[in-house]
Amino acid sequence: MKKMINNPDNVIDELMSGYVAAYPEYIRRSELHQRALIGKKRNPQRKVSVLIGGGSGHEPGFLGYVGQGMADGVAVGNIFASPSPIPIQAVTREIDQGHGVLYIYGNYAGDLMNFEMASEMTEIEDEITTVAVIGNDDVASSKTLDDRRGIAGELLVYKVAGAAADFGHDLAEVRRLAQLANDNTRSMGIGLSPCYLPQTGKPSFDLEDNEMEIGLGHHGEPGIEKTTIRTAQETVKVIMQNILKENIYQENDDVVVLVNGLGATSQMELYIINKEVNAILNERNINVYKTYVGNFITSMEMGGFSVTLMKLDETLKGCIDHAVDCPNFKEV
Amino acid sequence: MKKMINNPDNVIDELMSGYVAAYPEYIRRSELHQRALIGKKRNPQRKVSVLIGGGSGHEPGFLGYVGQGMADGVAVGNIFASPSPIPIQAVTREIDQGHGVLYIYGNYAGDLMNFEMASEMTEIEDEITTVAVIGNDDVASSKTLDDRRGIAGELLVYKVAGAAADFGHDLAEVRRLAQLANDNTRSMGIGLSPCYLPQTGKPSFDLEDNEMEIGLGHHGEPGIEKTTIRTAQETVKVIMQNILKENIYQENDDVVVLVNGLGATSQMELYIINKEVNAILNERNINVYKTYVGNFITSMEMGGFSVTLMKLDETLKGCIDHAVDCPNFKEV
Repeated sequence: MKKMINNPDNVIDELMSGYVAAYPEYIRRSELHQRALIGKKRNPQRKVSVLIGGGSGHEPGFLGYVGQGMADGVAVGNIFASPSPIPIQAVTREIDQGHGVLYIYGNYAGDLMNFEMASEMTEIEDEITTVAVIGNDDVASSKTLDDRRGIAGELLVYKVAGAAADFGHDLAEVRRLAQLANDNTRSMGIGLSPCYLPQTGKPSFDLEDNEMEIGLGHHGEPGIEKTTIRTAQETVKVIMQNILKENIYQENDDVVVLVNGLGATSQMELYIINKEVNAILNERNINVYKTYVGNFITSMEMGGFSVTLMKLDETLKGCIDHAVDCPNFKEV
Repeated sequence: MKKMINNPDNVIDELMSGYVAAYPEYIRRSELHQRALIGKKRNPQRKVSVLIGGGSGHEPGFLGYVGQGMADGVAVGNIFASPSPIPIQAVTREIDQGHGVLYIYGNYAGDLMNFEMASEMTEIEDEITTVAVIGNDDVASSKTLDDRRGIAGELLVYKVAGAAADFGHDLAEVRRLAQLANDNTRSMGIGLSPCYLPQTGKPSFDLEDNEMEIGLGHHGEPGIEKTTIRTAQETVKVIMQNILKENIYQENDDVVVLVNGLGATSQMELYIINKEVNAILNERNINVYKTYVGNFITSMEMGGFSVTLMKLDETLKGCIDHAVDCPNFKEV
């Protein structure tokens, strides 16, 4: 493990300090909890608030998506571990404007438990209504929808929820649109090389020099198979077969494409991957409405990537077209 | 070497295809040369055109910085190799609006030769006036200014040049401001792990598992010393000592901070680095006007980073505040 850090026990607090120092016009520390960050930019039309969160190690997820048109606050967990209910409650208290709060988080046992507990606490102690949308876009993680992990597709759910909130919708409608975004979204990832946990120095998974893991989760959870590394074209073909067999994406549909790097995979590779995704969508006459390529939700310095598709109707298009202004995600 | 590519001989063309496919509203291939890309968004006030370019492998540099408020076109070289004069001439022809073209490139022998040759060709064959600003921000590369390499600081020069062009200034004034931006900018980098050249599979440099290289160039050029890896605090202290001893950045000055990841270094680490940069600037009462943290000009999957400072006067502040809208760089 070779990391440019100080004390491994302090990486989260130090990264948060460096983050707030970088973007003081966008974000501040909560007055209620040190693992809670609050956005400073909020559309005056917005009634409902949006809260995101999850483990650290996914930077610029999730703190990078607090800002105008996206989330109002974020609860920050330890590396690859859910935030506890206390910072979630702290963020909820600070961002609620009396119209309720939508929680968006990934489908992981720790997140489910802690966000649900925070929801009960704010209901009872603060009389704030919260609802949740739980990201479960990873087709490789299970055949059963409810058992699937959330990976990079959550970014698109944030964007839709943020736009819906900015449009002045009430909590039920913001939740409905965010859930629709999630239901229309599927992803699958590939692992090439592990990341190392700062405190233990241990790799997140083991792979031989010539191997890749198909369907890897973004904490290093096992995928469908380990195989000899293939070309970008062959690899993307496998990913797209798995995504397209869900029967969501049909001829003449409009979709968002998200090619997400896990950390150590070069941008050059991500654009070559996008070329292959595009070729397969063109063959099927599926129309690319918008493409995002980059390191949006990483796994520290893990090598690998995921591909996400989100199917759009006219309402979702309006949400995707809505401007956002976050430190790490801006759309004019 | 573990890369998600197809044929190593085709990586540049495939990455360009994937790039144009991702952002068709922003960029198109030149009609004159396949290694030339032309921006589609141009401020109607803009007279002078801005051309950037350099080797591939630095994605999202340099093609990611073509767009409104930044460059009008980019000439794309092979990996870590200058574009030849032909695509530079092609871009020049396509983007010139009769008011001349500013070239911005790094201080490398190949780039100097090819951009100068392109300049002579366009002068004679096309009667287009071109001038150049040559990035040389890397303090570790030489004591002599003229011998210094350009590294990540070029991003800030693009931004100032693009704003100056958008303000409707003539070629001499756009060049003057871009040169001022370059003269006020200093950087220094650290290498932690090499990248691998797709065609040879060879690492860009060699380091032991516990070593880092101080002052590394962004093609893997040797730095000042190889040393046992230190903490972020100790490492940033060395970098900042080298940058601050240039005597450009004084108490009460306003500066831009750019923490640039080379590819494989996690965003978590980059924000911890920013915390340390901030602490040193605070101690010296140097005011951080704006901070950028991210993978802006990479070296494929190289591990490491650089820190850049740019000193601002009121004119440069106006340029930094100017909105930009590029695929990989947006400022509202």
